[in-house]
Amino acid sequence: MLRFIALSGTTGVTENLNVYEYHDEMIILDCGVGFPDLEMPGVDLVIPDFSYVVKNRHKLKAIVLSQGHEDHIGALPFLFREVNAPIYCAPLVTEFLEEKFRDNGITDFKINTFDPTKDSFQIGSFKISPFRVSHSVPDTVGFLIETPEGRIMHVPEHKIDQESVDGQPFDIERAKMLASGGENLCIISDCLGVHEEGFAKSGVEIENNLLKIAINAKKALFMSAMSSSIGRFQQMINVAKRVNRKVVFVGRSIQNKTESAHKLGYLKYDANDVVDTRKAKNIHPRDLMYIVAGCYGQVGSSVYRLATDDDSRVAVTEGDTFIFSANPAPPYSKESQDFVIDELIDRGVDTHYYDLKEGLHVSGHGAQEDIKMLWDIAKPKYFIPTGGTIKHMHGYEKLVMSTGRSKENVFKLKPGDSVDFKNDIASRGQKVKVKEVMVHGLGIGDIGKTVLEHRTLLGKQGMVVIVFKATKDGKVLNKPEIVSKGFVFEGISGGLLNDSIQRLMKHLGTHNNLNSKKLKDEAIKFLEGYFFKTTGRSPMIIPIVVEV
Amino acid sequence: MLRFIALSGTTGVTENLNVYEYHDEMIILDCGVGFPDLEMPGVDLVIPDFSYVVKNRHKLKAIVLSQGHEDHIGALPFLFREVNAPIYCAPLVTEFLEEKFRDNGITDFKINTFDPTKDSFQIGSFKISPFRVSHSVPDTVGFLIETPEGRIMHVPEHKIDQESVDGQPFDIERAKMLASGGENLCIISDCLGVHEEGFAKSGVEIENNLLKIAINAKKALFMSAMSSSIGRFQQMINVAKRVNRKVVFVGRSIQNKTESAHKLGYLKYDANDVVDTRKAKNIHPRDLMYIVAGCYGQVGSSVYRLATDDDSRVAVTEGDTFIFSANPAPPYSKESQDFVIDELIDRGVDTHYYDLKEGLHVSGHGAQEDIKMLWDIAKPKYFIPTGGTIKHMHGYEKLVMSTGRSKENVFKLKPGDSVDFKNDIASRGQKVKVKEVMVHGLGIGDIGKTVLEHRTLLGKQGMVVIVFKATKDGKVLNKPEIVSKGFVFEGISGGLLNDSIQRLMKHLGTHNNLNSKKLKDEAIKFLEGYFFKTTGRSPMIIPIVVEV
Repeated sequence: MLRFIALSGTTGVTENLNVYEYHDEMIILDCGVGFPDLEMPGVDLVIPDFSYVVKNRHKLKAIVLSQGHEDHIGALPFLFREVNAPIYCAPLVTEFLEEKFRDNGITDFKINTFDPTKDSFQIGSFKISPFRVSHSVPDTVGFLIETPEGRIMHVPEHKIDQESVDGQPFDIERAKMLASGGENLCIISDCLGVHEEGFAKSGVEIENNLLKIAINAKKALFMSAMSSSIGRFQQMINVAKRVNRKVVFVGRSIQNKTESAHKLGYLKYDANDVVDTRKAKNIHPRDLMYIVAGCYGQVGSSVYRLATDDDSRVAVTEGDTFIFSANPAPPYSKESQDFVIDELIDRGVDTHYYDLKEGLHVSGHGAQEDIKMLWDIAKPKYFIPTGGTIKHMHGYEKLVMSTGRSKENVFKLKPGDSVDFKNDIASRGQKVKVKEVMVHGLGIGDIGKTVLEHRTLLGKQGMVVIVFKATKDGKVLNKPEIVSKGFVFEGISGGLLNDSIQRLMKHLGTHNNLNSKKLKDEAIKFLEGYFFKTTGRSPMIIPIVVEV
Repeated sequence: MLRFIALSGTTGVTENLNVYEYHDEMIILDCGVGFPDLEMPGVDLVIPDFSYVVKNRHKLKAIVLSQGHEDHIGALPFLFREVNAPIYCAPLVTEFLEEKFRDNGITDFKINTFDPTKDSFQIGSFKISPFRVSHSVPDTVGFLIETPEGRIMHVPEHKIDQESVDGQPFDIERAKMLASGGENLCIISDCLGVHEEGFAKSGVEIENNLLKIAINAKKALFMSAMSSSIGRFQQMINVAKRVNRKVVFVGRSIQNKTESAHKLGYLKYDANDVVDTRKAKNIHPRDLMYIVAGCYGQVGSSVYRLATDDDSRVAVTEGDTFIFSANPAPPYSKESQDFVIDELIDRGVDTHYYDLKEGLHVSGHGAQEDIKMLWDIAKPKYFIPTGGTIKHMHGYEKLVMSTGRSKENVFKLKPGDSVDFKNDIASRGQKVKVKEVMVHGLGIGDIGKTVLEHRTLLGKQGMVVIVFKATKDGKVLNKPEIVSKGFVFEGISGGLLNDSIQRLMKHLGTHNNLNSKKLKDEAIKFLEGYFFKTTGRSPMIIPIVVEV
């Protein structure tokens, strides 16, 4: 029996991790991070729950990666604290990973770089053959996975795009060849674009749209896109050449990623067409094109620092031109990108962004026809949507049904759900119990429901600490110390807080000889009521009793 | 000299409040609330800064209102704590206001209800003539304001829509008549839709799109839209009639607003076509259409309670149909609406929402041609964009320039900015200093930068309270009490916190005889460093010294 487990990432777009199991062999496909939602205050990252993998570490034969985006590879340094296995990936992913492991001080790893145009590799009972797909980062692949129970085509993210601006179109021929020879067992594929009709747009026309703006730029020219958008950067570099501007990469993430891509020949430019920020100071702004990291205006990013005039290396000034070649994705990135856009416009910068519909961005995810064409190639019996939320999986199921197939052949999996394949039949397998693993600072998985609830309460209502002095035999002494933070304006809180103490002590006077626990409970109850009545707010009340 | 002050709401879409001043006469136009952004944790509402109005209260002659949306009338109960003046508004706004004042216990108010199809009213030197515009709530108007310095057309929000689904199209004839007789001094108008080409869509086709879904609904049918969308509700009621379903209004806001609109004849239905939730229990779900408040899935709203199965009156079950007739507006409403959509789909409810592009919503704001047609009617010399952010004002300015007018004739105003009109010439006037006034619970304006910073820190990092016992002469006693909340998982924090105390006391041992302030400073410094090193986090450290 072959078991496929959607261990993570099936209802939240990011944080991808899939497991294939056949007897005592286990393979991981992708291992990415997720991003905290509004209900995870303070959390830096969310990572898959590795418990199941760790418990079955003796089975783990390989980690296979489909692309270089963080939501597919970003959790590897965390996984490698617990287990180790050889990695299989395409050249650009190898580059990204080596940098990532270096940054994380991980030295014990083995990467097998495959050529997606021709390689196959055998891992125990699995024969795995990658093939190129088009996406927003080069060297993204799908896999044809041959198992003793049948063949599965697994394509985490793709569009069919034959004019891919990074020079790496979907390799239809190879995918067809790999899938040939009758029906296959299952397709597991990208469902995020399922609400869009037709084929996803190629980004080919973006270059001309950038050029139109660049030609009219009178002073310095700035462009920003996601740091892994190598194809987009090639278009920007081509435009720079056309308008005789030197390119300056600003921001570590863009510098590293473009260097990797350049090394592999995926990004083409003459060494003397690119200058660093220091050299740029001696060149007229009219002759420069800055390519800047932080297209969503994230706090601390290069774009944010430019927009808030907090960058010592580069400045944006009135009359400059700034192009955002990336559409925001709510919730966070929309508010932050809108902020920097307004800052730049306010400073007299000619700013170009999504609202203006100038054709400066396309999605990397396939639309309905991309999805259906992949099905035509795979000729699958069963269907598993991946990479979307519940509504996308539901849309994928409806799309399957619209082609005359049966709903029973679609498996919508939540994190931990599995499908068992045996004798050409798929059925729901055992559910693996998974929890949300949040990373904050150095802490991994130590933040749970209580910490988040406390943070949410503290963050919205603030808190009041009250320190009682009590004698050994439980007599509470006048008068307690009281301190508040994030509750009310300091200037007026003094009166309110002092008043609260007086009333509390009077109230407690009628409850003699409380033990420490009862004293605390009584204080919480009284102060919660008092503060709600006087302020309409519910700060966290933290009573502390010290013995004197 | 006539002064126009954009006191509030010019860079943030909501929170509208404008002031007109002529010598010792002052008029307020609109008085709305705003909504907190991600950097205002815990805040319920944002309201305009009334300081200037209060300082000049002796001049205040009237409050004129253009529509019934909260961002135009919601701040009146707050304003009425400070000043009072007669209100002028259209009938539906009167209804909404009377309910609002009743809810807020305000009895001392005078509302003059005007008929926007024919009335004009004189307030001191101002002659004000309302005219109907099309918007997403009935009885929205623009004004022609005649002043001794010239005539200004002020249209806070509008579309030209001649097929308005609430039966109240833009009254082109009256607007033209009012504006006739040569050039006018200034137009102040809605810029929010400036990025959209053409005319804003009429909502007329929505009814048919709702009907298509309703016809196929097999069990109970639910629809949700903003509570003031009277025109949309009329369409839903028409559909209910067509498919023989009784209408049930769910949620207090929808019940009150539809009742007001029905009373005025703006919402038409037979009394026996509408039933309450109790009566609905005796009717087959197939014969019911619920119209539910909370289209954005806001926590606590009727839709949220239905989606999370937490409503005792009504339940949504597998096979029901749910239509969201409202597109989410990021940041908050997108995440919350997506949440309820996924919950409903997951429960097997046939859910219809923005992604599916079924034509279930249109914007209430005019696009480029609506804006330009208004200019044609107004024939203004000067232009002031209102109701948008910086990028919308900038787009409005560009649109003005695209018609051959000069940039110098456009005034983009930030909160507190003013324009003086004298002898047919407009120029920038004095800036009124305004601050953000946040409402939380009963507190109005008592939350400032420090409270928000503390909340943000507490909410993301949590906090640690350390209580020192010290003798009268400053000797610190072993050992302090330590308590943390929202910082680390309780189960493991014990060891960390105890360890931190031991190290701190050892460290303090080398700093004898610290006074209370120095002791606190030293504790903060040491613990911040220690916790950052051990956890990578930066909780707020709150040291308290009690004398024993």
